[in-house]
Amino acid sequence: MERAVNARPRLVVVGGDAAGMSAASQARRWRGPEDLEILALERGRHTSYSACGIPYLVGKTVSTAEELVARDPATFAEKYAISVRTETEATAIDLDRRTVTARGADGSVTEEPFDQLMIATGAVPLRADLPGADAEGVFGVQTLADGIAVRAFVDEERPETAVIVGGGYIGLEMAEAFVQRGLRVLLADSGPEPMGTLDPDMGAQVREALTGMGVDVRQCERVTGLRSEGGRVRAVRTAAGEYPADIVVLGMGVRPGSDLARAAGLRIGPTGGIVVDARMRTSAEGVWAAGDCVETFHRISRAPVAIALGTHANKQGRVAGTNIGGGYARFDGVLGTAITKVCGLEVARTGLNESQAHAAGFAFETASLRSTTRAGYYPGATWMTVKLLAEQRTGRLLGGQIVGWENAAKRIDVLATALWNGMTVEDMAGMDLGYAPPFSPVWDPVLIAARKLAERGGPPARG
Amino acid sequence: MERAVNARPRLVVVGGDAAGMSAASQARRWRGPEDLEILALERGRHTSYSACGIPYLVGKTVSTAEELVARDPATFAEKYAISVRTETEATAIDLDRRTVTARGADGSVTEEPFDQLMIATGAVPLRADLPGADAEGVFGVQTLADGIAVRAFVDEERPETAVIVGGGYIGLEMAEAFVQRGLRVLLADSGPEPMGTLDPDMGAQVREALTGMGVDVRQCERVTGLRSEGGRVRAVRTAAGEYPADIVVLGMGVRPGSDLARAAGLRIGPTGGIVVDARMRTSAEGVWAAGDCVETFHRISRAPVAIALGTHANKQGRVAGTNIGGGYARFDGVLGTAITKVCGLEVARTGLNESQAHAAGFAFETASLRSTTRAGYYPGATWMTVKLLAEQRTGRLLGGQIVGWENAAKRIDVLATALWNGMTVEDMAGMDLGYAPPFSPVWDPVLIAARKLAERGGPPARG
Repeated sequence: MERAVNARPRLVVVGGDAAGMSAASQARRWRGPEDLEILALERGRHTSYSACGIPYLVGKTVSTAEELVARDPATFAEKYAISVRTETEATAIDLDRRTVTARGADGSVTEEPFDQLMIATGAVPLRADLPGADAEGVFGVQTLADGIAVRAFVDEERPETAVIVGGGYIGLEMAEAFVQRGLRVLLADSGPEPMGTLDPDMGAQVREALTGMGVDVRQCERVTGLRSEGGRVRAVRTAAGEYPADIVVLGMGVRPGSDLARAAGLRIGPTGGIVVDARMRTSAEGVWAAGDCVETFHRISRAPVAIALGTHANKQGRVAGTNIGGGYARFDGVLGTAITKVCGLEVARTGLNESQAHAAGFAFETASLRSTTRAGYYPGATWMTVKLLAEQRTGRLLGGQIVGWENAAKRIDVLATALWNGMTVEDMAGMDLGYAPPFSPVWDPVLIAARKLAERGGPPARG
Repeated sequence: MERAVNARPRLVVVGGDAAGMSAASQARRWRGPEDLEILALERGRHTSYSACGIPYLVGKTVSTAEELVARDPATFAEKYAISVRTETEATAIDLDRRTVTARGADGSVTEEPFDQLMIATGAVPLRADLPGADAEGVFGVQTLADGIAVRAFVDEERPETAVIVGGGYIGLEMAEAFVQRGLRVLLADSGPEPMGTLDPDMGAQVREALTGMGVDVRQCERVTGLRSEGGRVRAVRTAAGEYPADIVVLGMGVRPGSDLARAAGLRIGPTGGIVVDARMRTSAEGVWAAGDCVETFHRISRAPVAIALGTHANKQGRVAGTNIGGGYARFDGVLGTAITKVCGLEVARTGLNESQAHAAGFAFETASLRSTTRAGYYPGATWMTVKLLAEQRTGRLLGGQIVGWENAAKRIDVLATALWNGMTVEDMAGMDLGYAPPFSPVWDPVLIAARKLAERGGPPARG
């Protein structure tokens, strides 16, 4: 615990995944090993992996778990002079003494002093204390270890029937994975339509497509418990009945993993996430946080939000690392952009949906537009629907949603960029986007949707 | 010539393609047949077709010419009460008497009075008075009739060797078409690399890909003439030699088709295009123009440009039609966005390239970034290069270029939207774009490129 007077300053990173290791790597870019010692503590076995890739590992779209690991502990040690202790859990932070208590796999406990502390403790799955959730065959898909376990279970136990609880991104992606693996899949979701971050009219298209792929979709069904025999799951219970299951995946969302920070006395916000400023500083001097454990600023609602997504974790971690290293960087908030696909159906959203816009106090109008993804005569042209929300009077874009087939969803980036800049739908309608028959109709679908909304009450209704 | 006192006002449209018919249709939306008579004069046989689709017709990606026609004259007559005279050429405009002289296919000449006049006379191919260009087997690909003729020639005459003169969009797309039809293809281009609207470092990647597809690419070769035998083309001559050719396509670009407007005394700009304001008004009261025949405002260089592209023609025509009909609409300029593909290689650009930025007086920096199009571990991830130009000191984006394989090029729309809004590369680097492994690496390539440019001189060069 005693430190030499001439010791290098020490950065301790709690959590060795996207946010934590981005911060560590970026801090190292700014400060060499002679200037800064870096120690990262990771509860699991893996560092810096793509959690978003887990469903593709299960579906065997991706061959091996190693492919999902961007950098392993040995690489961090050798190339970055960052020492990583895996299977080591941070159990307490003492802000006065400036130490982290770390418990290793063998039960040994050390007190790790820090000058700077980076908290990247990720998210905690919401499981609503489901009775029977500890049975064999019941999985979360939160960590790479979870993904490896699900895949091994499918390989070795040959389940025939899968029930997925929760119809969000993870639920959809796991449905795809299990369909690819040849299982019968039932998806139970508590909302009126799957993909609750879409409006129900758009979510309905997702449900129809899932049904078309052979997924048995049950909406408005809250799971009340799991039935198991001999310690192994057999069925999932809802108010409507019981559904047989050889394997169950719980994908009911996550909350910020802020318990450690809260116990240390750091400020926690209304979303349950650690409060940070744009430089990723927490309420304590020299303590930083990033990733799924923090709450961030939503640029449209102007309210704090907690959104667990690898791309934010990476960006925020990098911002924190630059600032820790003595540089200057800001994370300028999020739009809630998200994108996914299920067996060819592409889904994307950004900004506020109708219920979010209501909650944020906006008066708004919407327009939906069905169009082809390419020139109608060009082979491979498929259908897509774009829905836009714009503020009344100002016409400022508030959000957008896309559901469609090949080459539809990445158009969400145009909407996100427009939102980022506070564009009106009238401005958007005139934009000079790329046009050629293999890529777009002569008016890109997002332009037509913007035009439709801009021209509300425009031309007289005739001809 | 005498008109009844109670006659409806009359709109005459010169040119029945994208711009002209968009204007006519939109004017009709605002003014019913009882309020406005609309007559369109079209020199060719077809109306409202996709000129951009012609290479796909030749390559048999598109089966029939009819698929490229959005609306035929009968549809305009029946559904829009717009009368279209095809094979009828406007030979003169008299602004004092407010008439257009129209010559029909049978040689008959009429004087057509107008209250409002819409000029949409398109573009004229640049052919540089090539000796021998009138031989059989030498084609432009400007009009649908050209496309039908090229396809028929390939079907019936079975040419084995094609020479394409000009390595721009049309040249590349025709190269693809001929490769698909099984011809040996030589592409002769006068610039240092194909796709002269890209910088040479990006154009070089296009050349390498074309070569890989079996196209014989000859750069810095200006075509001096064509050799024919018995009236049929046999070879193309350049300073470097003579290349055998059973068919030759001239794709050396176009100029605004503004001769009729110039002769009528309308103001013509430095690009040779008709001068219009943002409402598409020409220098004469009640006379409008849109499409390839006009010059428009480039939002980054702030200079007039003439860019022949169907999407601009459509948008401008619609703006003109709204204004003619009594509404209010503006065309807010272009960015020079363009996109194409050749046998799987995707190419796109927006804003200013290096030589354009120099010419416009900008001091700028560039960054190029090679990245995968999807998460590296996700099947189908391919390579793409993004190049960005940003103004020195301000960091404002000036332009971007993309060359890559599947799912690369439509990302140009993010750059176009950022340019439209005057974003800096620093702002861009933080944007919330859609991320999921099938669609993007965790940092989208355009974000990394922006970050790279934003961080010039940022972190100390170490570690």
